Amino acid sequence: MNFKMELAVLKEKGLFRENQTYVPIDGAYVFAAGKKCLMLASNNYLGMTHESEVRQAAIKAIEAYGTGAGGARLTTGSHPLYEELEANLAQFKGTEAAITFNTGYMANVGTISAIMNKNDVIFSDALNHASIIDGCRLSGAKRVIFPHSDMQVLKGLLESTKCAGKRLIVVDGVFSMDGDIAPLSQLVELAKLYDCLLMVDDAHATGILGNGHGTAAHFGLTDQVDIQMGTLSKALGSEGAYVAGKKILIDYLINKARSYIFSTALSPADIGAANAAVKILMQSIRLPEKVLANADFMRRELKMQGIEVGGEITPILPIPIGAADLAVKVANHLKEKGIILSVIRPPTVSVGESRLRLTVNAKHSQSDLKQAAVTIAETIKEIKGWKR
Amino acid sequence: MNFKMELAVLKEKGLFRENQTYVPIDGAYVFAAGKKCLMLASNNYLGMTHESEVRQAAIKAIEAYGTGAGGARLTTGSHPLYEELEANLAQFKGTEAAITFNTGYMANVGTISAIMNKNDVIFSDALNHASIIDGCRLSGAKRVIFPHSDMQVLKGLLESTKCAGKRLIVVDGVFSMDGDIAPLSQLVELAKLYDCLLMVDDAHATGILGNGHGTAAHFGLTDQVDIQMGTLSKALGSEGAYVAGKKILIDYLINKARSYIFSTALSPADIGAANAAVKILMQSIRLPEKVLANADFMRRELKMQGIEVGGEITPILPIPIGAADLAVKVANHLKEKGIILSVIRPPTVSVGESRLRLTVNAKHSQSDLKQAAVTIAETIKEIKGWKR
Repeated sequence: MNFKMELAVLKEKGLFRENQTYVPIDGAYVFAAGKKCLMLASNNYLGMTHESEVRQAAIKAIEAYGTGAGGARLTTGSHPLYEELEANLAQFKGTEAAITFNTGYMANVGTISAIMNKNDVIFSDALNHASIIDGCRLSGAKRVIFPHSDMQVLKGLLESTKCAGKRLIVVDGVFSMDGDIAPLSQLVELAKLYDCLLMVDDAHATGILGNGHGTAAHFGLTDQVDIQMGTLSKALGSEGAYVAGKKILIDYLINKARSYIFSTALSPADIGAANAAVKILMQSIRLPEKVLANADFMRRELKMQGIEVGGEITPILPIPIGAADLAVKVANHLKEKGIILSVIRPPTVSVGESRLRLTVNAKHSQSDLKQAAVTIAETIKEIKGWKR
Repeated sequence: MNFKMELAVLKEKGLFRENQTYVPIDGAYVFAAGKKCLMLASNNYLGMTHESEVRQAAIKAIEAYGTGAGGARLTTGSHPLYEELEANLAQFKGTEAAITFNTGYMANVGTISAIMNKNDVIFSDALNHASIIDGCRLSGAKRVIFPHSDMQVLKGLLESTKCAGKRLIVVDGVFSMDGDIAPLSQLVELAKLYDCLLMVDDAHATGILGNGHGTAAHFGLTDQVDIQMGTLSKALGSEGAYVAGKKILIDYLINKARSYIFSTALSPADIGAANAAVKILMQSIRLPEKVLANADFMRRELKMQGIEVGGEITPILPIPIGAADLAVKVANHLKEKGIILSVIRPPTVSVGESRLRLTVNAKHSQSDLKQAAVTIAETIKEIKGWKR
């Protein structure tokens, strides 16, 4: 095995990774290294994991149906909560139908490899999530990568790429690293003009943009996106993913998506929790409003402290740092001070473009965010000062 | 979209599939079409989904940590139950370490594509599970498919296939459709002789063979299999999967397996349930013994009724029927009589080789199995008689 050598290389580069265990307290705080910390790194955007209705629904599902599905959806794994969840998801997304996958990774891999094949072409944004990339690879289709959100270049590529088969444009609705939003109006136009299917991954938009309904709703283009994928594991506080679209697309995926066909269904608890979270979002826009308000507040607080913040209105706030070792040092110091955030380093970003990634949650109090902004600014200035 | 046309073809061939909803009652029975049915199609081999310790552990996990993980394992998703589960899995499997994946599909796809690449060769059994096939495809390695469990042909292929990179032999420990066991002693010998890594998928062996420890333990070869993969979603009554092996392999997968890195971790409930199930199996071999005794009993009962049954000692019992329409008719009649089993048709098997697939559970009573064997035999004879 050459595993040892490859791992040694990672260690030498400071890129070897190990799991860190956090003890969740609620949607906003965790215990780590013996103290209560403000969690600014989770994708649990609405704190749904700790809503009592969501917890009660998960517990009821276990009491009613047990702890596991025991089979794939098409064999014995379709317990009654699935029908309810998929009907609610379709209604919530404003589509004819919806299908649940076990993870976002499986939704993207399964959907893209089911609908596209070696005669087809996929136009994929350069910053799309790894699961989209793996789905494109597995499909065997020709892959055309366009520079991040560059509609001019995409138009040129659509113009110049001939194809006898199907064409698909696929993008993240909200990009996971920088929190910026895909230019959906232009994408819809280009998809129409060049006869492409359009797929949007709403992993980081579901429960947040468009009153929670996602990127298409945010732009008022719900009926213009062929394939709306999203996750149940972030703002919805559970686990798994969905694809929403026309009934014929969903029937097709049920019959053709290998990651759907060949996998034990999600457990009753996960489906019960996701269903309760969707119902909360169908009844009220309070949580999506709150997380966007908190994100806006935190952006302003950081800027007031002299800190540059990227992204748009979403709860993902990237802070450019530069060198990877500096970014790691800032994050480590902040952890000691009880603030947990993510470091994004090469190979995820280019050398010299390392950054911190903060995520804001609907359950964070503005006083905590305000204090965190001060501490983050102090720490960045301190560490950058050291280095000079 | 040409989805419509493709679906029409499936419908014409009688291969269009729709989800059937079952209401689980316990590990052995479900409600379907308004009545209580004997479930002979689930992979819930030990009935763990309804063990009270397993349910209680899942509920406690929700109360302690919420309904979802909120992040990937390497970011914020490693809640404390993971450490306990992975330590228990390693101990249970007799390996240095273990890693949890969200599904068996992701474990196979992630592991194979992480360790193998385009310079490598994979030797894969012709009847391996779809997730192994997708993992091999995604890896980009050269794929050499050998006829099902044919060690003579495999030896020839190992001899004749030159490769500068790594070599991997991958098999199901128990094959999912026919329930037969891989010839592991010979595979271990060949892997040594030809310097191959050996990977065994214990999805249908975990909790059953080798006092529950799996295929390697069944053959007394625990330390001879490099990569032992298995699922938490079948005999363990939860959801997800694991890979057990040397610490360096597990560290490598944590750093390189894309389906691990880029996916929200399993929910606390699922990890809590799986952990409780592993603990039950570590304390007693009662359930693995019971399911094998029930499988043996059912095999004998069916044979006494004049029914041919394939497979070996495992709880998967294939019954050859022949034509696909006859097999479907038998299954439909049995469902009306309160017995649910699976039909395996083309393209999963060759034309004319359609079969019924029964799975026996540790919670089935022998009187119910005895009665079911009579009903199944009557129905097969009746339907085959009609046709003549």
